[in-house]
Formats: sequence, C-alpha cells, structure tokens
Amino acid sequence: MGRFVIFLAFAVGNVAANGCTFKLKTFDVKVDHFSFTSTVTFPLRYLINDTFWNPSSRVAPIFIYTGNEGDVHWFAENTGLLCEFAPYFEAIIVFAEHRYYGWSMPFGNLSYSEPKYLRYLTSSQALADYVDLIEELKIAYPKQQKQHPTPVIAFGGSYGGMLSAWIRMKYPGVVTGALAASAPIWMFTNMTSCDAFNRVATSSYRITGGNECVDIIRKSWAAINRIGASDEGREWLTKTFKPCNPMNELSDIKLLKDWLVNMWVNLIMADYPYPANFSSPLPPYPVKVICKKIVDSVNDSSDDKQLLAGISEGATIFFNGTGNLKFMEFGTQCPPDSEVLGWGYQLCTEMVMPICDTGDTMFEKGDWDIESISDNCYKKYKVRPEVNYIRNMYGGKAISASSNIIFSNDPMDPWSTGGVLHNVSESSIAVLIPGGAHHMDLRPSDPLEPPSVKQARKLYRSVFKQWVNSLNDKF
Amino acid sequence: MGRFVIFLAFAVGNVAANGCTFKLKTFDVKVDHFSFTSTVTFPLRYLINDTFWNPSSRVAPIFIYTGNEGDVHWFAENTGLLCEFAPYFEAIIVFAEHRYYGWSMPFGNLSYSEPKYLRYLTSSQALADYVDLIEELKIAYPKQQKQHPTPVIAFGGSYGGMLSAWIRMKYPGVVTGALAASAPIWMFTNMTSCDAFNRVATSSYRITGGNECVDIIRKSWAAINRIGASDEGREWLTKTFKPCNPMNELSDIKLLKDWLVNMWVNLIMADYPYPANFSSPLPPYPVKVICKKIVDSVNDSSDDKQLLAGISEGATIFFNGTGNLKFMEFGTQCPPDSEVLGWGYQLCTEMVMPICDTGDTMFEKGDWDIESISDNCYKKYKVRPEVNYIRNMYGGKAISASSNIIFSNDPMDPWSTGGVLHNVSESSIAVLIPGGAHHMDLRPSDPLEPPSVKQARKLYRSVFKQWVNSLNDKF
Repeated sequence: MGRFVIFLAFAVGNVAANGCTFKLKTFDVKVDHFSFTSTVTFPLRYLINDTFWNPSSRVAPIFIYTGNEGDVHWFAENTGLLCEFAPYFEAIIVFAEHRYYGWSMPFGNLSYSEPKYLRYLTSSQALADYVDLIEELKIAYPKQQKQHPTPVIAFGGSYGGMLSAWIRMKYPGVVTGALAASAPIWMFTNMTSCDAFNRVATSSYRITGGNECVDIIRKSWAAINRIGASDEGREWLTKTFKPCNPMNELSDIKLLKDWLVNMWVNLIMADYPYPANFSSPLPPYPVKVICKKIVDSVNDSSDDKQLLAGISEGATIFFNGTGNLKFMEFGTQCPPDSEVLGWGYQLCTEMVMPICDTGDTMFEKGDWDIESISDNCYKKYKVRPEVNYIRNMYGGKAISASSNIIFSNDPMDPWSTGGVLHNVSESSIAVLIPGGAHHMDLRPSDPLEPPSVKQARKLYRSVFKQWVNSLNDKF
Repeated sequence: MGRFVIFLAFAVGNVAANGCTFKLKTFDVKVDHFSFTSTVTFPLRYLINDTFWNPSSRVAPIFIYTGNEGDVHWFAENTGLLCEFAPYFEAIIVFAEHRYYGWSMPFGNLSYSEPKYLRYLTSSQALADYVDLIEELKIAYPKQQKQHPTPVIAFGGSYGGMLSAWIRMKYPGVVTGALAASAPIWMFTNMTSCDAFNRVATSSYRITGGNECVDIIRKSWAAINRIGASDEGREWLTKTFKPCNPMNELSDIKLLKDWLVNMWVNLIMADYPYPANFSSPLPPYPVKVICKKIVDSVNDSSDDKQLLAGISEGATIFFNGTGNLKFMEFGTQCPPDSEVLGWGYQLCTEMVMPICDTGDTMFEKGDWDIESISDNCYKKYKVRPEVNYIRNMYGGKAISASSNIIFSNDPMDPWSTGGVLHNVSESSIAVLIPGGAHHMDLRPSDPLEPPSVKQARKLYRSVFKQWVNSLNDKF
C-alpha cells in the first residue's frame, strides 16, 4: 500500500511464481452480496495450485491470499510464504483477486465509469467474494473423510492483511486463522495520531539513508515551492522530473510533491536487502542506494536546482529501474489505471487514513483537512468519506474478542503506526519484525533477509499447526 | 416468530410498559449501509428509557433489544426483563425497531411496493442500523469518566434473538454480550432435520394438550381435504371458519390449513401459565384450554364436520380472545400487513428455514420442496431463496469462536430444534428452560412462571455482571 500504488501489467495465463505453478481460474460471484433482488454475477479471478493438496489428510488446509488493490498476479509474484509452507501443510494455495482490480471487473469496462457501477467496490463486498470462493473450494476439494472440516488460513499484506484479519473477525466459521502482515487496521480517525506516520518514516530514513539525505529531502519541498512559483521554474521542473505533461499550472506543483511523497514512502516500505519488484524494480537496500546517489549529486550545495536535480537523479532509480520508461507517472494527463482509480475511490469512502505533518519531519508541514479531502472526493467520485465506517464495521481498537490472528509489523515501517503492535487477545497476537520493512515476511525467503524474518516464519509455522489441529483432532 | 405472525396495532407516542416509561424517538440511518454512493437516510424508530442511567458509573451499560419482525411497541410490551434489570445495572433501555416493520419504513408507503424498494430488507442492514444507533447513544449518553467504555448488552427473542446473537458475533467491539432467547440460528438447510420441528411440537401437545387433542388435530387435515373437495363443503368451511372471503377455490383449502398450522405453532410457543398477548390475547395455559374445548366439543365423534366444528370453536379462543374480530385473518382478500409481507420476504431470501413432515406427527405429511417455494417467492417478490446465505454469513454450526452469548431455549418449544442447546465456547453458553415456552425468560416476571425461568434470570444477572465488569475494572 503506497499513498497510491503503481502496478505493472502481467500477462494472463497459467503462471509460475516462487516455485509454484498456478492455474488461472474464475469464479462467478454476486455483484451485490448484501441484497437479494439482483442475481447478477461477474467472474472473479483467482490463481490456484493444488499439487500439494492431500485429500486423505484430516487437517490439510486451504491457504488463501485475500487479494488487495492490484492484479492478482502481482501478489502471487511477491508472496512466497504460501508456496513455501504448502508442501509441509499439504495445502491448496489460492490467490484471490480483489473486485475492481486486475481483470475482476463487475461491469467490465464500465466498472469505473459512474458511481452506480463503482458502488460495489467495498471491503465488505470483497470479503463476501472470498467467503463464497472458499465455500466453493471446500466443495471442489472434498476431504476423503468427510467428517473432517477443511481448515482455512487467510494471508494478506498491507490492505490485503487488513482483509485477512477482517475476514477472520467477521467469518470465523469460514476462516480458521489469519496472517495479517503489515496491516494498518488502526490507521483511522481517532485511533492513531495523524503525525505518527511521517515521524516513523523520517526516523527510518535517518537510520537507513542517513541524516544528510533526510536533510536534502526536508529542504526539497520549499525548493519546489520557490522554483515552481514562476513559469520558467515550472519549465525547469518539467525538464528535470519528466511528468506525462508539462507543469504549466501552479497547481501542478502539488502533483509533483505528491508523487515524491509517494516515492519516499514506497521506498522505505520496499527497503529489502535483495533486489525486488515491489511498486517498481529496485536494487537491494534501495533507500541507501538512492540516498547515496542524491547526497553525492547535491554535494553539499544549497542551490535549489542542484538539490532538486539530485533528487530527480535518485528518483530515476525508483521509477525507471528497467530503463524503459520515459515519464514519471504523474501529471493531469497520465492515463489513470484501475489501481489508482480504485484505491482512490476506497480512500474516498471507507479507507480514510489520516496523515498529517507538524513540520518537524522530512516531509512538508500539512494538516489533515478532512473537509477539503471530502470535497475533492465528491468532485472526483461523487462520494464523501465516512470517517467512522471502518471503526463501526470492524471494531476499531475494540478487537479483544478476536482470535487466531497474527499481526506482523516492522516498527520502522511507517504503516506500523496504524498496526497492531501488542497482543489483543490470547490468540490474536502481535509479531514485531525489526528490519522486515513492509511485509517482508510474506515474500519468498532469501538468504539475505534478516534473522527476524526467519524467526517470524518459524513462529507462523507452529501457530498455523495449532490452528489446523484445533479444528481437527490430530495433525 | 410464527410461521407467519399477526401483530396488533399500537398507538404511537410515549408509552409505559412493564413499569418503565419510554420516549418514542427516531434516528436517521442509511438506507444502504454497504455502499457509499447514496447518502439517503430514513428515520428508524426506537423506544428509550434513561431514568435508571447513571453516567458516573464506570460500568452502567446500554441494554438494547434488537427488534424483530414487528412494531417496536409490541416488543416493549412483551419484554419485561430489560426494565426489571435496568435499576440494578443503572442501564439505559432501548427497544430498536427493525427496518421495514412498524413505522420504520425506508421508503414510506412505497417500501413494500417493488423489489427495488424491498432490496434493503436484510438482516445485515438491520444489524448495521443497530450498530449506528448504539454508537449514537454512546455519544448522547457519555460517561462522566470518559476513559470507561459503555458496555452494551443486546437482547432479543426468536428472530430478534438471532439478531442479538449475530450482532455480538459480527460487531463484538460494539456489543459486549447478547441474550438470544429462543433463537433458532440453526434452523437452516443442512443444520437441522426438517422434520424435527413438527415432532417436538407434537410431543409438546401430547404433554400439554393430551393425546385426544393431538388425535383430533391429526385427523383434521384429511377431514378438511375431504370436505373442501366440494363446493358445498367449502361453503360449510367458510361458514365454520369465517375467513376474510369465501373459500370458493380448491386452492383456498391450503390457506385454511396454513392458518391452522400457524395457530397450533403459535399456541405452543405462547403456552404461558398466565394470560398474555403474544400473537393474540390468550388465557393462561392456552393449549390446555383450547384442547379441552375441542375435545369436549368433538365428543369422540368421528364425523368430519363435528371434528372441524370443534377445532373452529377452539380456534375462536386463539383468534378472537377480545371478541372484536369478525374474521380469521386468512383468505386471498385479507389485507396483508407489513409484518406478513416483510417476514414473507425475509423467508423468501435469507431466512430459509426448512420444515417438513414425515406423516407421523399431528401435522399433515409434507416435503420441504425448495423448488416450488422458490417459484412462489419469485411470483410474489421477484426473489429466490439463497439457502446457504445465513450459513456463510453467520457461521452456521461453526460458531465456536463466538463469545459472550447466552442461548436460551425450552426444549419443548418447537423452535428449539433450530436452537443452540449446548455450550459452543467458554462464554457462549446454552441455557435450557423446561416449561419456558417461546422466550418466557424475556417476558415480565410473573408469580406463576416456572422456577426454571426464575433460575435463568438469576443466571443472566450474574453473567451480565461479568460481561460489564470485564469491559471495565470494577462493578
């Protein structure tokens, strides 16, 4: 989950990812799970691997990744844990695509065209999709000893992790337990200070990128404001940062700053010790690499243009690791993809996550101005955020009645500020993974990953074993 | 909950019931809680008593009756437990009206006119109404020591009990615990044998009404079929049973039998030891009274007409206890009220509760024919039942992850066949109340009630105390 997220396109077809081969399938789900007057359905995509499945086992589970805001292939590529655990658990592996993302469009090309079509893009509808899919899979893959129920473990990272936690909370009869990795379920109004996110991000940059880098980033906002104030300056910014279209208007400056904020956040989330393709292909320790490039390039200068040119050079590593892209993906004329549109809609309805800045971080000072956000949402989507919706729907901080959920977080990941960092009940527990960045624990294991990630996986294995056993008699 | 339920009209205004005075209020709720594209609201009615409320108490709870299929006044009249417990707990008492019943109509007079208006009549929407109302009440009635959360206990009987159990399962952060009295949450496809209901009803009649009465009722179906086969016979039946309009058609016979089945079921549900107004005003031990009247009147005759005349005489006590009614409320031309229409719609969508008869009870042999039910539903409402909906939505039999729910049942109440009769978790427990009929434990206490009901209430008091204490430090 970035502030907004850029995804790459993937080919459709059977795919291999992390040592598993998946069949690409679809399952018809109701467009509206919460009424009965329409029976209209649409095909929800999912990836499935049943090669490890042992129907004669009493405990073999279904592992389901509760897909988040993007193409399902992306999550299969970036999530190795299910494939690595499946042989041991003799599990079926499923990656389910979230409605309105990838190819799972309730109304085809019209899905994003009007409020009446966007109406069914909600977390509740997505969870109900997954519930119906799970029930269908239980029928499609029966146990030989029919008296033994099939345990189901839900997995998810970031928004997908919120969904995996919530599906266990809301449907504990369907889902036995959940791993919610880097899931900021408390990143909502009156649950977390809005300034915590930027503070933690800044601390992380100090540690991984160094104070000089933080200082340059901190100064960059004023530099952009100064240069962007004139036509000539915006021409220079256009040449330097290469947006989709020239920054002719003063208001275009905000788009540049938003894009940079998004980059800094994505970089710290994806600060893995090995090359990875998170929101874009990145080298190992990308924060260190990019910060070094920027610091070297700026070379202690206090000149606005030299400072911003340095940032632009660093940004190239982020946005153009493949060398194939001509433009940074921002500007009023960038073609918006469904990920940006869809997540934008979700941010404008239920996923209202306040972020503000008191002016003492590496980001620009700024209030959380819900009125102006609401007005922008109305302009864009004809909806307004409901700030208490998630609290009322999923319990907010009052989740001590939940069970069988693992909440994992790296305390240096800024999203952890909205995460569950302490045990909330006997079996809904918090796992802290220093150095784990944004859900590294879900990624394919790697010799370079920190020991904390390895330890977390060991714990998961034994907890999962308890969960599947508790649903049956014996492993 | 009868097979269908007949409610009496109540005046609107402030009301006194069971020693409490209630203010009648409304609260605007969203018509659709599961989308964001419309902000249309409607006023949901509720009754509230705040005279016992102690804002300086750390533990004083909200007691909320999660209203079922009828006018909210009816539930306040028939539910004494909340008023009796409120002084001890210093509780606010709320009776919330279920959308589409009483005066809580999302689209006014149009609410029942078309599928597009009926669309929002679902248990999920009703629960979300109650959640929003509870959150509003927490704001309207703040505690003096704001750090102390307000415990909430949900109460309900029958379908209202299903709602109270489900609101705790789905929103445990909002609702601390629930008393689900005579709530048949397992009365669904593949959870309970469809023939159990009639068997238990018959056993109850044997015990309370005697074998002779059971024998007469058992014979009555064939007698109706024989007499109803001819025009002359249906004329006689019309004169004898007084429906809204003459039974000219052969198909009218089914309406008479449905009405009688409903009566027998309602009578055994309402077999209280004191006079009460359940689905109609009844004397103490109505089954015994009516059975005696029937047995005396039939007087061992095996003549069809004498047998049915006897049943008709008994029925008068049921349907016309006040002596004011001219007709039995059945026949194609009876004006349907919202209770009948609304509950009919719910039975045709999610509340699909299979009942069948193998031919060895006091009822008529009959299969559970979901195809023909589905076709009838489509004719009537343009919807079809979704038989697994409730299982997927509320967990079916897999509710061991639930907590803080009391399921109470009289094992002789036929609805107990779909009830929870054993503990499902450490704190979701079953309470059996022999002689308790259909949720007598919720009714105003009465010197004539059996000791089992008194004992149950004693238990409730101590369990509720645990619940409210567990949410705070000290009672």
